[in-house]
Amino acid sequence: MFCGFDIGGTKVLALAVRPEDPTTPLAVRRTATIADGDALINTMTEMIAGLEADCNEACSAVGVGIAGLVDATGVLKYSPNIDGLLDLDIRRRLRAESRRPVMVENEANAAAWAESQHGAGRGARHMALAALGTGLGTGFVFDGQLYRGWNGFAGESGHTTIELSGPEHVTGASGPWEYYASGTGLGRLARQAAARGDFDRATAEAGSVSAIRGEHVHELVVAGDPDALAVLDEFCYYTAVGVANLVHVLDPEMVVIAGGLVEIGEPLVRGVDDWTHRLVFGARHRRRVQVVPAQLGSQAGAIGAALLAAQAV
Amino acid sequence: MFCGFDIGGTKVLALAVRPEDPTTPLAVRRTATIADGDALINTMTEMIAGLEADCNEACSAVGVGIAGLVDATGVLKYSPNIDGLLDLDIRRRLRAESRRPVMVENEANAAAWAESQHGAGRGARHMALAALGTGLGTGFVFDGQLYRGWNGFAGESGHTTIELSGPEHVTGASGPWEYYASGTGLGRLARQAAARGDFDRATAEAGSVSAIRGEHVHELVVAGDPDALAVLDEFCYYTAVGVANLVHVLDPEMVVIAGGLVEIGEPLVRGVDDWTHRLVFGARHRRRVQVVPAQLGSQAGAIGAALLAAQAV
Repeated sequence: MFCGFDIGGTKVLALAVRPEDPTTPLAVRRTATIADGDALINTMTEMIAGLEADCNEACSAVGVGIAGLVDATGVLKYSPNIDGLLDLDIRRRLRAESRRPVMVENEANAAAWAESQHGAGRGARHMALAALGTGLGTGFVFDGQLYRGWNGFAGESGHTTIELSGPEHVTGASGPWEYYASGTGLGRLARQAAARGDFDRATAEAGSVSAIRGEHVHELVVAGDPDALAVLDEFCYYTAVGVANLVHVLDPEMVVIAGGLVEIGEPLVRGVDDWTHRLVFGARHRRRVQVVPAQLGSQAGAIGAALLAAQAV
Repeated sequence: MFCGFDIGGTKVLALAVRPEDPTTPLAVRRTATIADGDALINTMTEMIAGLEADCNEACSAVGVGIAGLVDATGVLKYSPNIDGLLDLDIRRRLRAESRRPVMVENEANAAAWAESQHGAGRGARHMALAALGTGLGTGFVFDGQLYRGWNGFAGESGHTTIELSGPEHVTGASGPWEYYASGTGLGRLARQAAARGDFDRATAEAGSVSAIRGEHVHELVVAGDPDALAVLDEFCYYTAVGVANLVHVLDPEMVVIAGGLVEIGEPLVRGVDDWTHRLVFGARHRRRVQVVPAQLGSQAGAIGAALLAAQAV
């Protein structure tokens, strides 16, 4: 079996999978993210041993998907979402500790690979995945190959500018796509609507305007609240601006919407699809790109990492 | 020999080249662009015969680079820069008229291919080309292959939104990269500066604020005029916003600046390079992308088209 990790800003997910059927893991472990290199490597090593014990089988190789800039040698160069992690040579150190071959990849790239092989992207020639979570990550599969770029940093599309005179993001950039098209962005839109008096049910549910989060939009969309649907439509518009940008640059056959927010489901995906089609240049003269929900849920990154590790050995 | 065409909004350039030495054409012909499908195909057929007569050699195949959305079967689906051309099956019709194999490609894609094989991009693993002309076209070569996308429409990056609340472009879109990073955009920035009283020499040279064009900026940059350098710096900033967006999405090793504006030379390319480095996410943690000028000048599109035709037969 192969182990796949997904290390995000808040949690570490580890799976034991077989490459021929990776979507039904043999074992699953979770812990909170540790923003210290030594402790993280130790914890991951323990989790590998734990997964081996869980399924009574040795791990042949380890794949790691992690939020941030991962270079081609498996070094995490920079991860603004995981404090304190800078120039961490995950591949070399985890290989030394776990005594297993290790492959490291950006988590959205890993998720894109999983969806292309076993999820929503099967059969698409060129696929882009946009993972809407706390932040926004993207990954690309072109002609059946994961596209990594020169440094291994391709797919950092959340940092593309869509509103140059827009507000400053946590990264210091003005108006990047991620500022709008993320859970953080959805919560902000909801609070702005509530502050205008246009989202009273959310204010009531959360207790105050400032306590409103993306989750309240999700709940109230499910309940059919018209104000929540209006906030979601605004969110879909901003998301689609970046999706249309990717369509202009890459002309993919399919854009897979992934990440925690995809749990909102049909209203989100349909909204992004509608706005994308309205925003794409020459839409009447081209085949319509498919905007579809991810199928592998929150395990996509870990599954993709395990598959890439299996491929590499 | 092989014929290569570049069909832009104003002129048609046709070259006769040998694939082993495409940068020194055997013969060159030019005419004004004809925004009528039948007349354009007839004129191109005559130009092929003319090139054959010029070098006393038969043409083995024809490559066509053209501004607009060209699909994988060689149909020009939509070209906002060439009025009246819509759903023109260039490949089939020119093949029937000229009795030669024909390959049709977007002109910026063709230019990217030429620069990657015989120009600035030699040796770069992943290369993006941005052609700053009347409009803005881009093309990509990944791992030694021209990247075309699903429909053949990849590289329409001029239509990516960089300023969502920005002014409406001729395409109807708000604040696309091309609105700023093009000859049209440079002229507009210069007129805005002149209207503020910040570019008096250009007003004097042009006769009036409204008569100022990008060419005046070019001349006055060469003359070392500080106001012209300030306008150019603003232009480089806007251009670099889109270049940085491409770096975030694609992580190329090299970005080649092409198109008519590259004749401004070093001040333009250095300005775009400086701003790109300031705008790129995690710049201190990544190898610095090279921003370099194109080497094949205005013939790149036609050369690339001829090379692609030679490759296809």
